[in-house]
Amino acid sequence: MLPGAEFPTPEVQKAGWLRSCKAMPALARGNGQPCDCLPPLRAAAEQLRQKDLRISQLQADLHRPAPAPAQPPEPEALPTIYVVTPTYARLVQKAELVRLSQTLSLVPRLHWLLVEDAEGPTPLVSRLLAASGLLFTHLAVLTPKAQRLREGEPGWVRPRGVEQRNRALDWLRSGGGAVGGEKDPPPPGTRGVVYFADDDNTYSRELFEEMRWTRGVSVWPVGLVGGLRFEGPRVQDGRVVGFHTAWEPNRPFPVDMAGFAVALPLLLAKPNAQFDATAPRGHLESSLLSHLVDPKDLEPRAANCTRVLVWHTRTEKPKMKQEEQLQRQGRGSDPAVEV
Amino acid sequence: MLPGAEFPTPEVQKAGWLRSCKAMPALARGNGQPCDCLPPLRAAAEQLRQKDLRISQLQADLHRPAPAPAQPPEPEALPTIYVVTPTYARLVQKAELVRLSQTLSLVPRLHWLLVEDAEGPTPLVSRLLAASGLLFTHLAVLTPKAQRLREGEPGWVRPRGVEQRNRALDWLRSGGGAVGGEKDPPPPGTRGVVYFADDDNTYSRELFEEMRWTRGVSVWPVGLVGGLRFEGPRVQDGRVVGFHTAWEPNRPFPVDMAGFAVALPLLLAKPNAQFDATAPRGHLESSLLSHLVDPKDLEPRAANCTRVLVWHTRTEKPKMKQEEQLQRQGRGSDPAVEV
Repeated sequence: MLPGAEFPTPEVQKAGWLRSCKAMPALARGNGQPCDCLPPLRAAAEQLRQKDLRISQLQADLHRPAPAPAQPPEPEALPTIYVVTPTYARLVQKAELVRLSQTLSLVPRLHWLLVEDAEGPTPLVSRLLAASGLLFTHLAVLTPKAQRLREGEPGWVRPRGVEQRNRALDWLRSGGGAVGGEKDPPPPGTRGVVYFADDDNTYSRELFEEMRWTRGVSVWPVGLVGGLRFEGPRVQDGRVVGFHTAWEPNRPFPVDMAGFAVALPLLLAKPNAQFDATAPRGHLESSLLSHLVDPKDLEPRAANCTRVLVWHTRTEKPKMKQEEQLQRQGRGSDPAVEV
Repeated sequence: MLPGAEFPTPEVQKAGWLRSCKAMPALARGNGQPCDCLPPLRAAAEQLRQKDLRISQLQADLHRPAPAPAQPPEPEALPTIYVVTPTYARLVQKAELVRLSQTLSLVPRLHWLLVEDAEGPTPLVSRLLAASGLLFTHLAVLTPKAQRLREGEPGWVRPRGVEQRNRALDWLRSGGGAVGGEKDPPPPGTRGVVYFADDDNTYSRELFEEMRWTRGVSVWPVGLVGGLRFEGPRVQDGRVVGFHTAWEPNRPFPVDMAGFAVALPLLLAKPNAQFDATAPRGHLESSLLSHLVDPKDLEPRAANCTRVLVWHTRTEKPKMKQEEQLQRQGRGSDPAVEV
């Protein structure tokens, strides 16, 4: 693999490595012997990556906000909320993660499991986590090629974030694989709840207190999803008797990923419960929940599912037409500035 | 000069650069063309040298003794940040305002001026403000029909939020018109800064501390705007010497609404300074700033405008196809549930 490919830092691109590296096989053919240049370039790329990580750590140490004196010490009694967030590199990634991390910073006793769709931790995400002031575990797993969205495919064709959410479940059950933050999984007997929070939704801080005391699986409405103002469970006499949804109402669990939370002990008691990447469209949530609970035992929250406290917002992909024009003129935005 | 010679770190030697670099002239002779590999290797060596410098700087910063027992300034000592947010009714309005209000709740000594594009206060926004826990002033002014975006017109045809921002400026200067929250404008001599924060952008909490001590007009980069990774001032020796932008670089102030803040005393000293709804596309910010400051006197913030702490994010308009179908069948989402 080319150093640039495994590690396209701005400097590397500026320095034109890719160009010259691509030129090398030709050189090699030219003199009929393997080119001597790729190994040292790879070595240099690896050294640069190491130094970038070191710089990230140091910058994070410097920028880490002072502990807010405002919060009174958290009552040990509160169950921990484990928030599982799959994320992938894109123009709006940092904006989304900054916004989400600031929301999570308002919630006491919360542990953020951020799982990158990547071979390893990226400097951008490592820096952001270290500076967030949150208790976190940093994980990374690349979505297998076969599962990845093809160019031009509509987003719903393949569920996104499956491998990443399952990696977080693995860590909760047996630990291992953490590339940053808290390395050890919750000790046996930990009281907690697990919530799958994508990085582009909008969350009211109130939502987290609704889910904190989940005994099995709790549910609530989600706004602006499925082509509706909201989707959510129908509740009678405090029990879930159906679901308000337009899409396949007969799915075992017609709920959005943002619409439920699972008690940690239940997840640990069902080691086979995970998301199935091959589940048909709209059945990903059911592929996990079918292992865990009977629909009639779902615990309605948010005032018997009459309050919307999470919204399935989507952020537009920014257009970069001017950027491409300026770059052709060598006047593109400084790649050293992280966006 | 060989990179190894100019820069013999242990890694470099381990990686065997010197060997392979020395091998290159031979290679070059071998195929009778100059070897492509020396320039990228030199570039790599230079990059490694730069990073080592950066690392030692950061380590020095870290080991520098902390400033004497941090006495966090009394909140009363901090200038107030007046955040002016125009907003209008739409499907994602509540989600956006919840998200923004939670970000603002992380900032001490902040006063939110929320201005609805409506004849009067709406219950949704009034409830949201009351529940936000923020110090706020609720204003409302309807955009005149002539200025309103026609159905199907692209968003940039008419600047949005002009009347609303000007109403907030009126309140800061002379009070009056508040429909909720704090009714009295800042008393004479109040130290503060005014920032125009639309309800769909993404703001790092760090941004607000960058602007708090603004003397006249402070500026910084804005991410994902103008078709670029970021737009922002160019700074030399601590002064703004130009702007990185693709759109009409010769505008008096080629800055985005989210890219500047104005000291309250300056705004009060220039009673005629306001936004001009008839300003040509991209000149709305200039229509205010031209009253207030000479471009050369802009105060660069965010590490001399090298850090992006605000992003011009846009939220997709949710599709409501299924909602319309269900409503035709009398099974639409319960209108009593606020979304």
